Amino acid sequence: MRDFDPLQTRRREYIFSVLKNVFEKYGYEQIQTPSMEYLSVLTGKYGDEGERLMYKVLNSGDYLAGVEGPWESRSLTPKICEKALRYDLTVPFARYVANKRNELALPFKRYQIQPVWRADRPQKGRYREFYQCDVDAVGSRSLQFEAEFVLIYDEALSRLGFLDFTVHVNHRKILTGISRVVGAEHKLTDLCTAMDKLDKIGVDGVKKELSERGIENFEKILPILHGIDVNELKNWADGDEAVEEGLQELNEIYSYLQITSPGRAKLKFTPSLARGLNYYTGPIFEVTINGGGVGSVGGGGRYDDLTGAFGWKDLPGVGISFGADRIYDAMETLGLFEKRDFYAPPLFFVNFGGECGKKAFGIAGECRNVGISAEVYPDPAHKLAKQFAYADKRGIKKVAILGPDDLAVGKIQLKDMTTGVQETVEIASFIAKLRG
Amino acid sequence: MRDFDPLQTRRREYIFSVLKNVFEKYGYEQIQTPSMEYLSVLTGKYGDEGERLMYKVLNSGDYLAGVEGPWESRSLTPKICEKALRYDLTVPFARYVANKRNELALPFKRYQIQPVWRADRPQKGRYREFYQCDVDAVGSRSLQFEAEFVLIYDEALSRLGFLDFTVHVNHRKILTGISRVVGAEHKLTDLCTAMDKLDKIGVDGVKKELSERGIENFEKILPILHGIDVNELKNWADGDEAVEEGLQELNEIYSYLQITSPGRAKLKFTPSLARGLNYYTGPIFEVTINGGGVGSVGGGGRYDDLTGAFGWKDLPGVGISFGADRIYDAMETLGLFEKRDFYAPPLFFVNFGGECGKKAFGIAGECRNVGISAEVYPDPAHKLAKQFAYADKRGIKKVAILGPDDLAVGKIQLKDMTTGVQETVEIASFIAKLRG
Repeated sequence: MRDFDPLQTRRREYIFSVLKNVFEKYGYEQIQTPSMEYLSVLTGKYGDEGERLMYKVLNSGDYLAGVEGPWESRSLTPKICEKALRYDLTVPFARYVANKRNELALPFKRYQIQPVWRADRPQKGRYREFYQCDVDAVGSRSLQFEAEFVLIYDEALSRLGFLDFTVHVNHRKILTGISRVVGAEHKLTDLCTAMDKLDKIGVDGVKKELSERGIENFEKILPILHGIDVNELKNWADGDEAVEEGLQELNEIYSYLQITSPGRAKLKFTPSLARGLNYYTGPIFEVTINGGGVGSVGGGGRYDDLTGAFGWKDLPGVGISFGADRIYDAMETLGLFEKRDFYAPPLFFVNFGGECGKKAFGIAGECRNVGISAEVYPDPAHKLAKQFAYADKRGIKKVAILGPDDLAVGKIQLKDMTTGVQETVEIASFIAKLRG
Repeated sequence: MRDFDPLQTRRREYIFSVLKNVFEKYGYEQIQTPSMEYLSVLTGKYGDEGERLMYKVLNSGDYLAGVEGPWESRSLTPKICEKALRYDLTVPFARYVANKRNELALPFKRYQIQPVWRADRPQKGRYREFYQCDVDAVGSRSLQFEAEFVLIYDEALSRLGFLDFTVHVNHRKILTGISRVVGAEHKLTDLCTAMDKLDKIGVDGVKKELSERGIENFEKILPILHGIDVNELKNWADGDEAVEEGLQELNEIYSYLQITSPGRAKLKFTPSLARGLNYYTGPIFEVTINGGGVGSVGGGGRYDDLTGAFGWKDLPGVGISFGADRIYDAMETLGLFEKRDFYAPPLFFVNFGGECGKKAFGIAGECRNVGISAEVYPDPAHKLAKQFAYADKRGIKKVAILGPDDLAVGKIQLKDMTTGVQETVEIASFIAKLRG
């Protein structure tokens, strides 16, 4: 797990602030759920691997009282742990929605930006504590939301500075249709699992994996892997009903996006895109940054039953997710942080001590009163060179110098640390000067 | 543990944003540390009660492999848990500072706003997951920081809307001196523990508790409990050296606060104020909201040795903390949220479907392009009354109505949900109208 220093924290907060601002512009509201959930809420939702990677929290007090073994990890855990750390934001959101069934205004449009924890082996781009940023609209079947999510990806990633990215679109029904057309109707999961690895293992790898999974009709599948547009797919599928239905819904989404077009996002129909097959039932999305070896920074789709496990059946919805850590890494790789001016360091007052120090303290206070960040070096005994070195290390851009000679004539010197230019300003007009 | 709905989340985020803004105006920078720390980092820092209340995280995988008992809670815990959830922000901060010893610019001015977890019995104003907001400056003995912290309390609480609050000030050396003067030099902790309860148990309660702790010189202590100003204390202490030293430092702090005075905060010398006695070594603070039964919303002080436990001896510093949950409760009690305009709900477009719906979708997009939050009701099949009821429940202030008749004449109707006033605007000038 990671510490974040001031620079990293600023950059992360910048990403979150852009996402929040965009989500709110579309009318989504933030909620937060607790870091811990009862195991009874989480169990059975994430499969075996998920349950293995979930961080369980030891019961407090004498947690072994009344426990009689067997002293074996798997069976002991539920006896000594009743809570675990949040593993994703979807299950806590579903629990939240089901809890508030009687008070929510539907469609409920919420976003949530919180850390989740997974006891995974750490590797590049994968962390044990990381933030998920989810936006969902539940309680409506309108495809207007899908169109808006494309626009949300477009606006958020554009504002973060990405110039070239693609929103891949597909539909769960199209995948069903494809499986039927290639004669693998009963092997939908196998087909999708193999196709979904296209980016990682290439066409030959997918061919091998399909064969291992008992799907041999590779020549027919090949165009899907190579990419095929909507009209070509129509021909390819030769009137398959599920494919037609899926395409019709995608067309409706496109019709909205002709009214309000994405500015930068490339929209691409990617029939091999599968994502969480057991969960999604309608249109699905994945967004990739092109270039820089960054890959996917988010995805999502439509589902039919968010809250069934919590007693509210057949509540539909659609949602997308942004991977904040991936976005951070991508922005770093592409040098996007340097181009963004999201931090103004404080104005730094050198401290000459005595009356000069007190005067600097007072002027710094006046700066803050008009909204300008300001600080006075705390120890007047330190030499000027040391004070300047400190300012430099802090990334200070402007230094105010108020020595005894300056004070005597009512002046202050303002040094631009970037250009080295130093100018003399009347103390009386100093604030006005700073405010430009 | 608590879910936060949109309203609560907005309000909490508002508090955090005010605090961050004030901290940054004084040149403090944000860091973040992981939610989990190794038990080796946390153990021995919080006393027995702290260790009992700490949430330990079960090791992942086959955590019992190689463990041979005894099957007894206390001794088993360190064998099956190597991490625990953050219990406060101070110890992780100390660990962070010691880790970065070779790269930090001193004084290091950091703030940190993150949740901490304690397995405490929940009660009004006390939660198992709650946010701490800490600001510290380490690596300097300058009392300028203490003065700034008073100003930070003043500005932050004023901006949140509090009109009447007091920053109580004392000094650890004054407490030492008092214990000497009343003949309880070797019972400093007992004396302070009893005095610190003054708010809760009153003068008679403190008298009883002092007596139980073997301190009988109550008549001499009484003026300290009743409150006594700086000059009276000087006389009372009759030249005690520690008291003199403490008062001299407080005077230096006051001298800064005469240059830049707090706007609202009442500054009060409170010689019975004790706070974390084992930790603080210099000036100490506590801030209370007056009225509304709210009490303390923060405190802090100067310490001599932040990082000794992590191998960096004698690193001095000073810091304060804001209790965000207490502040939230106080703002709610005093009705301060209602008076603050920190949320603009989106402009809401009724959806008439067909061309009208598409046009609304487009205009909503134009609104967002100029920074105005906007959303279109997703389902045109729903009756207008239902759409309005939804808008109302969402707290929408302005509704845009674009029916077939409006569209035919290029107009849109804008309804103010608060006043009920509805006006007709040309579509062409709608955005300009909204921007006012």
